[in-house]
Amino acid sequence: MKIGIVGLGLIGGSLGLDLTAQGHQVVGVSRKAQTCQRAIARQAVRDASPDPAILGQCQVVFLCPPLGVMESTLRAIIPYLQPATVVTDVGSVKDWVVQTLSPLWPNFVGGHPMAGTAESGIEAAQRELFVGAAYVLTPTDTTPATAVLTVEQLIQPLGVRIYHCQPQEHDLAVAWISHLPVFASASLIAACQAEADGTVLHLAQALASSGFRDTSRVGGGNPELGLMMARYNRPALLRSLYAYRETLDQFIRQIEQQEWSALESHLQQTQKARPAFVKE
Amino acid sequence: MKIGIVGLGLIGGSLGLDLTAQGHQVVGVSRKAQTCQRAIARQAVRDASPDPAILGQCQVVFLCPPLGVMESTLRAIIPYLQPATVVTDVGSVKDWVVQTLSPLWPNFVGGHPMAGTAESGIEAAQRELFVGAAYVLTPTDTTPATAVLTVEQLIQPLGVRIYHCQPQEHDLAVAWISHLPVFASASLIAACQAEADGTVLHLAQALASSGFRDTSRVGGGNPELGLMMARYNRPALLRSLYAYRETLDQFIRQIEQQEWSALESHLQQTQKARPAFVKE
Repeated sequence: MKIGIVGLGLIGGSLGLDLTAQGHQVVGVSRKAQTCQRAIARQAVRDASPDPAILGQCQVVFLCPPLGVMESTLRAIIPYLQPATVVTDVGSVKDWVVQTLSPLWPNFVGGHPMAGTAESGIEAAQRELFVGAAYVLTPTDTTPATAVLTVEQLIQPLGVRIYHCQPQEHDLAVAWISHLPVFASASLIAACQAEADGTVLHLAQALASSGFRDTSRVGGGNPELGLMMARYNRPALLRSLYAYRETLDQFIRQIEQQEWSALESHLQQTQKARPAFVKE
Repeated sequence: MKIGIVGLGLIGGSLGLDLTAQGHQVVGVSRKAQTCQRAIARQAVRDASPDPAILGQCQVVFLCPPLGVMESTLRAIIPYLQPATVVTDVGSVKDWVVQTLSPLWPNFVGGHPMAGTAESGIEAAQRELFVGAAYVLTPTDTTPATAVLTVEQLIQPLGVRIYHCQPQEHDLAVAWISHLPVFASASLIAACQAEADGTVLHLAQALASSGFRDTSRVGGGNPELGLMMARYNRPALLRSLYAYRETLDQFIRQIEQQEWSALESHLQQTQKARPAFVKE
């Protein structure tokens, strides 16, 4: 199958590596000529160009740019697509993407492969990045069933666990388990940095170990990703943040009031609830 | 040197393994005869007994019981100690411990070896648990310098990084980097569990990956430890929780008001601040 990948970063590049290895004819589009050359050299694509004309005859196109240029990217490639071409994206937010892109291209299927590393860019792309990862598809009532089937058949061999849901359901779920943790974690770093006085700050930095390291990891990550979550998943993120603040206040009240048995029971509940979210 | 260890759990047992291996004559005290037998079998101690009379002639005694019975444990062994015996504890809170135990035993040195695993009990004890870990000592104006020196010379060969500070400074620092993360993390689990409706909850559980796993780890841990932090380090923990809530509110306001450039700058600051706390 001839496949196009627009945006040759970590996700686009990794998709290209796997799809090329499976025998597909993959072509890429990137604004930067150097990225195109590196993608070819790494065998993530057979050919690549800043010119979207390279996408002619593609049966499926993966849109892998940052969310902020998703719409303009689709508009720029539409003149080169055939009506039957299936377009799917890899954005981490789905409601806004599906509402924005579906009217522009009827054969559009919203998608979100939930894999990544701390690195970004074509050099960070790797084979089998998606093995065992969730890959969410968010078709709507107007999405052609054949387009969904085409995407499914293409991504299944990557080793992903495919989920179907409404775009809004996806956004609520990732707000809870992916976007809220970023802001809970960032608040931890910011509070420690801002409130600890000089002596205590240096002591805190010296004594911090695995507990702080793990809890602060996603809050110390790429600021652009956090910004995109907030911009494009704002209602769901705010809903989860309000609930989080309410839960935090419950813990604070229990500690203020010295309600030790209620606090212990609260902590027992969190210990019991966690395994359903964690496969380890 | 003859050394006593009272409380043969993860920390006491691990201390015993290392100190025995270094040639000291280590004896242990545990309420449970079975724990005493296991500690002897594992060579964590040369001899052990529920009877504190075994501590006679010890030059140094490590108090390793849970915080809740720290005071009663010291009172129970005092009749068997010689006046010159140095007593030190391993509790994770220091101000309350030092204020409570120092008046009972002048030769007392507050201590906190900052190592652990997810497991507990004598079976979880292991050699070299403390290599590279911080070991905080909190002598006060009235602590005999020779007592501090004795403890230092004993723990240095374990491979620890020794820090000295005031008990209050220790408690503030660990509130920030150890106790606050537990409640920030527990609030995350509790909020996800309580607020997500049925469909979204199941989707969230299926989609949760490394970000949620790391951010929720310490909040899903042993409820007793969280309870002890709250009970015995309440003022410092509340202070850090109030600051955390304020930082969280700043993030929420920036997202509500769509102050994207301020939000990005805020996230850039957390990204920049984290490495000083994290050695990886």
